[in-house]
Amino acid sequence: MLKATIDADILKESIDAISALVTECRLHTDEAGISARAVDTANVAMISLSLKKEAFASYAATTSELGIDIAKMKNIFGMMSKDDILTLDLPDEGHKMQISFQGYKYSITLLDANTIRKDPNPPTIELPGKVVLAGNDLNSAIKAAAVVSDKIALGIDKASEVFYMIAEGDTDHIRREFGKNEVKFINLVDARSLFSLDYLKDMGKVMSRSEAVEVQLGNDHPVKFSFDISGGKGHVEYLLAPRIEAD
Amino acid sequence: MLKATIDADILKESIDAISALVTECRLHTDEAGISARAVDTANVAMISLSLKKEAFASYAATTSELGIDIAKMKNIFGMMSKDDILTLDLPDEGHKMQISFQGYKYSITLLDANTIRKDPNPPTIELPGKVVLAGNDLNSAIKAAAVVSDKIALGIDKASEVFYMIAEGDTDHIRREFGKNEVKFINLVDARSLFSLDYLKDMGKVMSRSEAVEVQLGNDHPVKFSFDISGGKGHVEYLLAPRIEAD
Amino acid sequence: MLKATIDADILKESIDAISALVTECRLHTDEAGISARAVDTANVAMISLSLKKEAFASYAATTSELGIDIAKMKNIFGMMSKDDILTLDLPDEGHKMQISFQGYKYSITLLDANTIRKDPNPPTIELPGKVVLAGNDLNSAIKAAAVVSDKIALGIDKASEVFYMIAEGDTDHIRREFGKNEVKFINLVDARSLFSLDYLKDMGKVMSRSEAVEVQLGNDHPVKFSFDISGGKGHVEYLLAPRIEAD
Repeated sequence: MLKATIDADILKESIDAISALVTECRLHTDEAGISARAVDTANVAMISLSLKKEAFASYAATTSELGIDIAKMKNIFGMMSKDDILTLDLPDEGHKMQISFQGYKYSITLLDANTIRKDPNPPTIELPGKVVLAGNDLNSAIKAAAVVSDKIALGIDKASEVFYMIAEGDTDHIRREFGKNEVKFINLVDARSLFSLDYLKDMGKVMSRSEAVEVQLGNDHPVKFSFDISGGKGHVEYLLAPRIEAD
Repeated sequence: MLKATIDADILKESIDAISALVTECRLHTDEAGISARAVDTANVAMISLSLKKEAFASYAATTSELGIDIAKMKNIFGMMSKDDILTLDLPDEGHKMQISFQGYKYSITLLDANTIRKDPNPPTIELPGKVVLAGNDLNSAIKAAAVVSDKIALGIDKASEVFYMIAEGDTDHIRREFGKNEVKFINLVDARSLFSLDYLKDMGKVMSRSEAVEVQLGNDHPVKFSFDISGGKGHVEYLLAPRIEAD
Repeated sequence: MLKATIDADILKESIDAISALVTECRLHTDEAGISARAVDTANVAMISLSLKKEAFASYAATTSELGIDIAKMKNIFGMMSKDDILTLDLPDEGHKMQISFQGYKYSITLLDANTIRKDPNPPTIELPGKVVLAGNDLNSAIKAAAVVSDKIALGIDKASEVFYMIAEGDTDHIRREFGKNEVKFINLVDARSLFSLDYLKDMGKVMSRSEAVEVQLGNDHPVKFSFDISGGKGHVEYLLAPRIEAD
């Protein structure tokens, strides 16, 4: 059972964050809120998303697992205006969710959750380097890197106190350094790993809306991006596996 | 003979209305104004358009029939600014129309009207249900329906006093209800018919600019949309044949 | 050697002007500034561009010839904001130019200038007709002509004191006349030549930003467009060969 009312914009942001990686997912509901965790088909990137009941104007739910067609949701939410208030209604044991806003009533048949890949277990990894910067700066650096390469190295240089990204093309390269005036260093240790820009470009678009993205880095280890949505009442984490750095 | 001056915007709106259905048409001129009536190639939709001489800054014409390449007109008018004043000039027995605006002089060879399909006769039909609503609301509902289906049912429910549209997809459906606060009921009777969204999408774009579109409906009958252009000095009617509702 | 600082916008405008004709060129530097001259692969159009050292915030250079990949530059400059300040740094005998702005550092491998077509010699031609008009008006006329044809005639009519452009399609034609209120006649003599719109469309986009483009015309002769960039601290000339006018 799910009965909830929410700003269309908040739910849209959540769906956008998930759709950067997967086209369908299991959405978990319980009395505290909703959450989802999914990996992309190539097992390279993972998203964890949670939205507390406080993010909703009204919220009531039992513990349940819903199969959501993320791509379809994106289409429907494309119709909504920023200020629309949206109502979700799923009866006990129901397979059709009602979505209402502005005189519109959608009846959406949920996917069978059992046909959707199971939630991944979050890997236990140590990522010692930790910085916080504006999502917009991160996204711009990702877009700039894509001009010369399909890979990007992210790193922290302890000695010079910079967070940097480097992209190497065949003949050109680009380096973007972020100093203390642009980045908050939570844990300043040397770190560097290489990542595929394919994934980062989609994540970057989502992160560009966030004023503070926490980046956790190791050496040839995954990167974790964490940021709040809905003014702290929701949270997103992206985990991205590294690429092998060829010499 | 046709000598006329008109706001570019008004003529553009008229051409846009026609181009939703056909790429060429017979344009009738007489001393009272201009008019056109045309059906699409599949005989599913009809447009009737009239523009009184009062819509023009200056107007003089003899009774005549001009073959107009609507698609070409759209291209030319795409060059114009909103506030341009446009002059049309076609001499007696002439086949080249001069269109002038802003220092530009186009000379357009008219099509031979005899090569264009004859004007259809408007069918005699009774459409008892009649409501008036904002074109923008109508267009939004059409676009929302297109997300889940290629057909849309339009209807009036007398008991609950709503004008509604319903689109059924394979697994999802969407319903949009318009109550008294959004729709003016001119004749509140039960009515419902099914239509192809292909046609409605193009018509919807044109109607979205109108503040008041009159919708006339029957049961498994065509729908007629009527609305003014140019502040009431012009008028457009769309008639769209129904689709058979499969059970 | 080149060490220079400049508004991103000015360099972007220069690169755009060159990219209308060629994808790579030889850029000449000396202590007075930078310049380039290139013809397109079909030998139909030529560009000459110069940017004085006064256009730069700081400038120091030795006499040298750099092989520039114009297409790549356009990509990189697409990342920049209007108000970015950009630093160029090329060491003596260096083949890698550093471009820095806003925390970004690009290292661009220059092309071997010897692999790029040599600078053309500017032809000695007399083009007696000379008018000056707004680049935006010129660009609009070029776009309008493209609706009916792939060629455009540019001309000056001494008797009626107009600068005109004419495009003839198979069935339609369009004429745009510019009188004294829109054009400044520097040398009012009869002139008329025909040109390919392919080239003019790209040039038109660049020229549309200029408030005053000088147009020099002859009879079945090339046309020369001259205009300032960077508030007169830079200058661009386009020369375009005529097409044979078929009768």
